[in-house]
Amino acid sequence: MIMNDRFLKACRREPTDCVPVWFMRQAGRYMEEYRAIRAKHSILEVCKTPELAAQVTLQPVDRFPLDAAIIFADILLPLEPMGIRLEFVADEGPVIHNPVRNRADVDALKAVDAEPLRFVCEAIRLARRALEGRVPLIGFAGAPFTLASYLIEGGSSRHYLETKRMMYHAPDAWHRLMEKLARVVTSYLKAQIEAGAQAVQLFDSWVGCLAPEDYREYVLPHVKGIFEGLQGTDAPCIHFGTGTATLLELMKEAGGTVIGVDWRVPMDEARRRLGPDVAVQGNLDPVVLFAPVHEIERRVERILRQAGPGPGFIFNLGHGILPNTPVENVQAAVDLVHKLSQR
Amino acid sequence: MIMNDRFLKACRREPTDCVPVWFMRQAGRYMEEYRAIRAKHSILEVCKTPELAAQVTLQPVDRFPLDAAIIFADILLPLEPMGIRLEFVADEGPVIHNPVRNRADVDALKAVDAEPLRFVCEAIRLARRALEGRVPLIGFAGAPFTLASYLIEGGSSRHYLETKRMMYHAPDAWHRLMEKLARVVTSYLKAQIEAGAQAVQLFDSWVGCLAPEDYREYVLPHVKGIFEGLQGTDAPCIHFGTGTATLLELMKEAGGTVIGVDWRVPMDEARRRLGPDVAVQGNLDPVVLFAPVHEIERRVERILRQAGPGPGFIFNLGHGILPNTPVENVQAAVDLVHKLSQR
Repeated sequence: MIMNDRFLKACRREPTDCVPVWFMRQAGRYMEEYRAIRAKHSILEVCKTPELAAQVTLQPVDRFPLDAAIIFADILLPLEPMGIRLEFVADEGPVIHNPVRNRADVDALKAVDAEPLRFVCEAIRLARRALEGRVPLIGFAGAPFTLASYLIEGGSSRHYLETKRMMYHAPDAWHRLMEKLARVVTSYLKAQIEAGAQAVQLFDSWVGCLAPEDYREYVLPHVKGIFEGLQGTDAPCIHFGTGTATLLELMKEAGGTVIGVDWRVPMDEARRRLGPDVAVQGNLDPVVLFAPVHEIERRVERILRQAGPGPGFIFNLGHGILPNTPVENVQAAVDLVHKLSQR
Repeated sequence: MIMNDRFLKACRREPTDCVPVWFMRQAGRYMEEYRAIRAKHSILEVCKTPELAAQVTLQPVDRFPLDAAIIFADILLPLEPMGIRLEFVADEGPVIHNPVRNRADVDALKAVDAEPLRFVCEAIRLARRALEGRVPLIGFAGAPFTLASYLIEGGSSRHYLETKRMMYHAPDAWHRLMEKLARVVTSYLKAQIEAGAQAVQLFDSWVGCLAPEDYREYVLPHVKGIFEGLQGTDAPCIHFGTGTATLLELMKEAGGTVIGVDWRVPMDEARRRLGPDVAVQGNLDPVVLFAPVHEIERRVERILRQAGPGPGFIFNLGHGILPNTPVENVQAAVDLVHKLSQR
């Protein structure tokens, strides 16, 4: 039994008393409670210690009246059991010490199931227990393109040169890599749902670097396979990316109960283009949370107005909360969404 | 008298024998001739020595059958006479040692005319002489938003946090800064045209980080002022940005004879949305120049097909040529554009 089921209802395009809200990276450095844990443990330690991961997952839900929790984890976790040596370097982000560059590297990757990631499932079980049905818990995974971009570039990237080079020069190796990643992601998300995740989000954060035709050819079939693989479950699936203004229709075609959009696409345009048969999530610019409250209010109000009175809308940012975001502005944004959207 | 006026005709939406092509950053590190000059001189030395700037400007035109030359310069040059200490750090890009963060910093900026930038005008005169009318010469400047982002962040940026923070917290300071930059850019572009630039391009490279409403409120009026200020000249103006899929109509409203789009927007969509009364430039992904020639051909052909048979189309990349681009692929792309678009 869930006490607050606004988020799940909105995913299913059922009417709600007000618009549900949660934030990507809502458990993060902007919170004192989170920094206190991270002062003693690395990101990977927190991810791999179910008690810590569950504890961090609950921090934002304990502090703000959010309508969903999201399990604390990192999209790159599934790469380690595939044979990748992963490190998080301070101020630099993830570094992959053995990047994938050719067909032999791709073949050497292990197509694992979710078993080695059981610590995430255990964290989900603990977080569900600790939440006591207050709000639903979201699981998540990185999408194959975004994972492939880290695997191939060896970390984050600006031009995705090596990633696209593999697409163009070695399409066989590319598709084989995407198949392997899609298989791992599918079983990982299934395992999260079995462990108790009541919805899942697929993060294709960097797919917006692609032209629509390249998305259709090199990405869409693999993402579609993931959503088809999840159809047996009844957990709603959120399909998210940034810079996807020209990819929205293709992302819907690939699948998802909810499409996540960033602030570059006005919410009325997103709703119109995606149609009434899919829910939409977004899309406040995370930097707006650094603005004075009256500016936050103006923008929250505009997004709610653009999203319209119909069901199937979840308020979120267009990307994750930034590290130095003022906590009081996060509080203000959550309250404003609830207050301004009351039916 | 210009021997090859395809580019200027296309800017004015007049019929041409085939589609004109030039590339942003066509004089760059991918060329051996360029690297030979840069081995002996810094970027700023080349920019500030008219003989060197003119020499580098002609390098790509001497090697490839391009339909336009673009003066070698950097968009940040106008900031120095405004009082900014600018440095180009290897592998890191531009660094501004005294970034602008508040109203006092903005007030302290000098609203100069183009006189201190006369070395660029002299380079234009020398390049025009050396070109002997073979192809037209394009001048350029950074647009106010993109310049402001460097000024405020102190260099390149990922989230444009400080830039947007000034927009939201100190709109008066923001608009004052944009006015000052717009005034400098207008007189700089006018001076380039007077010195012999036969067209100009306004680079708003990073404006795609903004939501459309923010573009309308914080950017559009200032860019519009620049294009209005140039109306007395008869040089076509190209208005370019990246990640602008949801800004195209607003960029057209702001002005420009030609709108530059990146690879994220299919060219048929760009042409349809922008309408027949403006020319369009773009939009091959610069990374495609790393692909095998048959993939380059497939994509050049697609862009030409999407651009349609009507006049007013200029082939370009969606952003500048990347440093390690194979020279033979640049050659192939130029040849393919001419061959595949012959009427």
